[in-house]
Amino acid sequence: MFGFDLLILAPIGSILALSFAFYLALSVLKMDQGTDRMKEIAQAVRIGAQAYLKRQYVGVALFFVAVFCILMFMAVKNYLVIFVPFAFLTGGLFSGLSGFIGMNIATQSSNRTAAAAMKSLNSGLRVAFSSGAVMGLTVVGLGLLDLSIWYYFLNWYYSCHPIPLGTDKIAAITSTMLCFGMGASSQALFARVGGGIFTKAADVGADLVGKVEAGIPEDDPRNPAVIADNVGDNVGDVAGMGADLYESYVGSIVATSALGVAAGLGVAGVTVPMVMAAVGVVASIIGTFFVKSKEDASQSALLAALRKGVFASSFIVAVISFFLIKATLGVEHMGVYWSVLTGLLAGVLIGLCTEYYTSSGFKPTRFIADQSVTGPATVIIGGLAVGMMSTALPVLIVGIAILASYFLSGGAANFNSGLYGIAISAVGMLSTLGITLATDAYGPVADNAGGNAEMSHLPPEVRKRTDALDSLGNTTAATGKGFAIGSAALTALALIAAFRDQVGLYGKEMVLSLMNPNVLVGLFFGGMLPFFFCSMTMRAVGRAAGKIVVEVRRQFKEIAGLMEGKAKPDYARCVTIATAAAQKEMIMPSLLAVAAPIVVGLLIGVEAVAGLLTGATVCGFVLAVMMANSGGAWDNAKKYIEEGHHGGKGSLAHKAGVVGDTVGDPFKDTSGPSLNILIKLMSMVSIVFASFIIRNTFFK
Amino acid sequence: MFGFDLLILAPIGSILALSFAFYLALSVLKMDQGTDRMKEIAQAVRIGAQAYLKRQYVGVALFFVAVFCILMFMAVKNYLVIFVPFAFLTGGLFSGLSGFIGMNIATQSSNRTAAAAMKSLNSGLRVAFSSGAVMGLTVVGLGLLDLSIWYYFLNWYYSCHPIPLGTDKIAAITSTMLCFGMGASSQALFARVGGGIFTKAADVGADLVGKVEAGIPEDDPRNPAVIADNVGDNVGDVAGMGADLYESYVGSIVATSALGVAAGLGVAGVTVPMVMAAVGVVASIIGTFFVKSKEDASQSALLAALRKGVFASSFIVAVISFFLIKATLGVEHMGVYWSVLTGLLAGVLIGLCTEYYTSSGFKPTRFIADQSVTGPATVIIGGLAVGMMSTALPVLIVGIAILASYFLSGGAANFNSGLYGIAISAVGMLSTLGITLATDAYGPVADNAGGNAEMSHLPPEVRKRTDALDSLGNTTAATGKGFAIGSAALTALALIAAFRDQVGLYGKEMVLSLMNPNVLVGLFFGGMLPFFFCSMTMRAVGRAAGKIVVEVRRQFKEIAGLMEGKAKPDYARCVTIATAAAQKEMIMPSLLAVAAPIVVGLLIGVEAVAGLLTGATVCGFVLAVMMANSGGAWDNAKKYIEEGHHGGKGSLAHKAGVVGDTVGDPFKDTSGPSLNILIKLMSMVSIVFASFIIRNTFFK
Repeated sequence: MFGFDLLILAPIGSILALSFAFYLALSVLKMDQGTDRMKEIAQAVRIGAQAYLKRQYVGVALFFVAVFCILMFMAVKNYLVIFVPFAFLTGGLFSGLSGFIGMNIATQSSNRTAAAAMKSLNSGLRVAFSSGAVMGLTVVGLGLLDLSIWYYFLNWYYSCHPIPLGTDKIAAITSTMLCFGMGASSQALFARVGGGIFTKAADVGADLVGKVEAGIPEDDPRNPAVIADNVGDNVGDVAGMGADLYESYVGSIVATSALGVAAGLGVAGVTVPMVMAAVGVVASIIGTFFVKSKEDASQSALLAALRKGVFASSFIVAVISFFLIKATLGVEHMGVYWSVLTGLLAGVLIGLCTEYYTSSGFKPTRFIADQSVTGPATVIIGGLAVGMMSTALPVLIVGIAILASYFLSGGAANFNSGLYGIAISAVGMLSTLGITLATDAYGPVADNAGGNAEMSHLPPEVRKRTDALDSLGNTTAATGKGFAIGSAALTALALIAAFRDQVGLYGKEMVLSLMNPNVLVGLFFGGMLPFFFCSMTMRAVGRAAGKIVVEVRRQFKEIAGLMEGKAKPDYARCVTIATAAAQKEMIMPSLLAVAAPIVVGLLIGVEAVAGLLTGATVCGFVLAVMMANSGGAWDNAKKYIEEGHHGGKGSLAHKAGVVGDTVGDPFKDTSGPSLNILIKLMSMVSIVFASFIIRNTFFK
Repeated sequence: MFGFDLLILAPIGSILALSFAFYLALSVLKMDQGTDRMKEIAQAVRIGAQAYLKRQYVGVALFFVAVFCILMFMAVKNYLVIFVPFAFLTGGLFSGLSGFIGMNIATQSSNRTAAAAMKSLNSGLRVAFSSGAVMGLTVVGLGLLDLSIWYYFLNWYYSCHPIPLGTDKIAAITSTMLCFGMGASSQALFARVGGGIFTKAADVGADLVGKVEAGIPEDDPRNPAVIADNVGDNVGDVAGMGADLYESYVGSIVATSALGVAAGLGVAGVTVPMVMAAVGVVASIIGTFFVKSKEDASQSALLAALRKGVFASSFIVAVISFFLIKATLGVEHMGVYWSVLTGLLAGVLIGLCTEYYTSSGFKPTRFIADQSVTGPATVIIGGLAVGMMSTALPVLIVGIAILASYFLSGGAANFNSGLYGIAISAVGMLSTLGITLATDAYGPVADNAGGNAEMSHLPPEVRKRTDALDSLGNTTAATGKGFAIGSAALTALALIAAFRDQVGLYGKEMVLSLMNPNVLVGLFFGGMLPFFFCSMTMRAVGRAAGKIVVEVRRQFKEIAGLMEGKAKPDYARCVTIATAAAQKEMIMPSLLAVAAPIVVGLLIGVEAVAGLLTGATVCGFVLAVMMANSGGAWDNAKKYIEEGHHGGKGSLAHKAGVVGDTVGDPFKDTSGPSLNILIKLMSMVSIVFASFIIRNTFFK
């Protein structure tokens, strides 16, 4: 029962995280806001971002009401316990809330970061990083809060009410909590897909007319789409990334808890992931204090400063988990600890791989830059080849992590213990999310600070500092993407295993052999879905960008004195157009993700669903790594050319590099990251609809 | 025993096919060779192609000797029966021989087709198609010959010698014959990868310097790489495609035979696929008589002429198979007939899908052409999106074919019968290979005829006819690729099932559940391999093309009077360089394909190998479809622009279209098609090395 007492650490960790986030937010808000011009620009971005989020939340609310009704109907028909619809709502609500808070603080921080950078590089770094930390800690704080509330409530409820399906209490609790991830997943899908479409439509639209046709530089205030572009960084990279990882975070924890029951670890097996998350919160808070830089530090020194924070947190988690697992699961289950370490290590290694393949400091990105000399075609082929090549190491790392965490946790003797090990390695990877997400959300803040400095015509030395911060942000964004993909893959595997248990609860034993044609066909369909999904999102970006292009051209033509800087463009209209387009375009991909497992399940059965989920996870993981890395490498190859290599800015090589960067935009910021959600949401939908599918399969 | 008597049809079919191919070859060779200039050009291409093939065969011979020694060693150590090394040799030999014959007749036909086109369109069509039919019938004839010889020999041998592994005679025969596919696979890999690298290196190299730098048209005799480019069409699209499908053909037949034993169908189950193949040969020969066209037929009428032949053959197979299966397997197994029909139909449907996505007559390719207006980046994004979208239908078709053929063959009652059904659907798809390959191999002949007419300055009306023939060839090449991919996927599945049986023969029962971490990790590794393999082959093309570029530039600079047409370029040197580069570059990808299953097997075991094969088949299939269709659509979008749309030749839109086409070249002619072999060869290697892996796995 010692394990159960420790669980109190979960709500405590949650409150700690939220309090510290609140404290950081207050300290950021107290910072100097800079000149009136800086305030004005930040205000425009803020208004745009809020307008976008409001519109998105209205759309999402409609979706949630519809799904809530469906779930209620299913609960009434006894397909689900009555709490699932409500758990679905809270999951969506908390995920939305963390996106809202994170984005608000991010939009408050851009001008403050620029203003701080007027003083020193370190001040700028601190403000931007603190803003990122607010986001990171809010995500983990709200995630733990939601988990704690439901755990304590269900624990109380099932103590004095009958337990459904004839299982024991702890199984009933975890089986219900598992379903609540679907709310978080749905919210995440809209945030990632909608935000991803918005940000790239605005970016591409602004570039195509502004840079290419009108010949004005990036972030020029005369460009009507420039505010929309800055808004996009916030809604895509902050709110989208936050919702994505919120989902992985709670998803991996509830899946591990559910698998703990099957592994026969009892209450302790359920407690450990939640308590470990709480430990991670404390470690993340401590880690933030390690992030500081000397004045005029090099980029690698800045990166080292951020890394120090992450490594310190990881170290703390590694040490405390040892004692935690020893105390709760006992020495005979110390293997679980090694699984946790495996996950923690795999997360760090995948980040390093991503950096190698996307940073201009290494061979692959330079190879792409070299290819620019022979024109855009070779840049594209080179970038695709690098992206494809870059899938090898992350797959090897994840593969080894799966095997290691399975066998270290005793999978050879007990199959379910091994699955628990895989799941808890995902929890280990995500335990330091508070700080890894902070370094990630730092990126768009620094990017916007750079935009703010440019538009406010701040002096060159300040611009140089914000550039240094921004450039670092590109690296952390790339490693963050690798981390998000890796954790999504492990979480999805845990969810698939949990799906199998859930199906088992309804008395159906699945034959998941590769030689089962239903499984095989599921694998094929699942393998194809990521490609189909990417096609939809890439075309969506193209269509939305087309609308921005038309609007920007119209403003340049119709607003007299705009190009001379005498008149102001109508920023808000571009934001409105991008918002409307993103909302419209995200419907079809989202429906695909929700409908695919249900349709496949109803037609071919739950075994095909398991195949579908596995195929989508494998193919989606590989494709997501490829797209994120190709995109990142093209981006940095272009920047490398702009630094003066192969003829520098304006050369033919540079033009070829720009083509690569433009192709890479939807790769790395829309389609690639959306795949994370696709694979997790499909698993979640399958879990929630498991009983419905089992009872209504067409061909039995 | 009636079934056994029917088997005599296999050698008879083989002899029929080879005799008819010989007759067709003689009639082609009797045709008018055209002017001296035409002969001279054809001669240059022929010499180049033979030089390439000779060099390739020397390299391949070394590989075969090495592998033969390894297999002999394994046979001595009792890992294999002694016949496997020899079966390996004959498989390679016959596959190589069919490539040699097919390519020889193809290079003999280009000038003859051009000469015939001087008379009429129909004459040109007949010559080019006859040449393709020689290739098609040689492939099926030699394939059946090899199968027959081994079957009769082993049947005799095991009648008077002890049977290994304690199985019955028929199992011993099929288990040995299964291994002989590895020889065909290895030969196919070198032909596809080497040929693919050669053809695109020459093409890209010729274009980059000739078209872009020197500003001379395509197929201009002043371009030193023009002969290499024409040679490439023959070694890549004729010899490569032929070896690929030879492998699918024999692979699907031996895999089906092997599965017939497990399905308890006895000798009849082994006989049926071979006899059905023989029926297909006769049907193909009859089908060739349906191919003729009226003078001045439109392109769709030409396509209809070719289609009539294929449909007629399919119809004949469909009718005769019914009686064949009724007679051999009996009415209680008529489900097998429906599986055959499923495969036949799926092959036709996948071809139609490919046509829809890659022909400029339909929306997807026109969409890419529309994207050219906003520059190369949007062309690339559009083409990738179309390619990704185009994976959906073929996957659905293959998925439905798998389920249908499994359940129609009685998989619900007997698991092994279902697997036999899947395998025989692949045989059904490939039964008309004689004629489908003819329409396919027709393409490069028509292409070369066009080149020959251009270089020989034939009158415009002849050029118009060869253009019509060439344009048709692009369509048949695209549908042929779809067919090759679809049949490869089904064949690979049959081989994986056969691998499982083979492992079972050695007394090891595999747990192939998706929840087995070894399987799961195998799936991940397998899912990644196609990406990694494509990266290698794409970069290989880039490096090889770079060498051609340097050589062409050198000749333009050093050979005085070349641009004025007063001096002749050194065609042979470009051929030599492309040959050397292709030979060198194909080593690493080939090693990857051979080594991956062995290494994974030795480290993680046979279950991981099954996962690896399945993951590679799923991901490889989807990726191959995407790459082939993106490439085809880009090619045709460029041609559509050249027809005068969006500004026509020389416009900015055209330039953007050329970028798409160049990116698509390695997609559709090197990396995409090579994936077919990757998935089949890996399965073959796994089957041959099964016993070795089982006994030497490191972590048990």
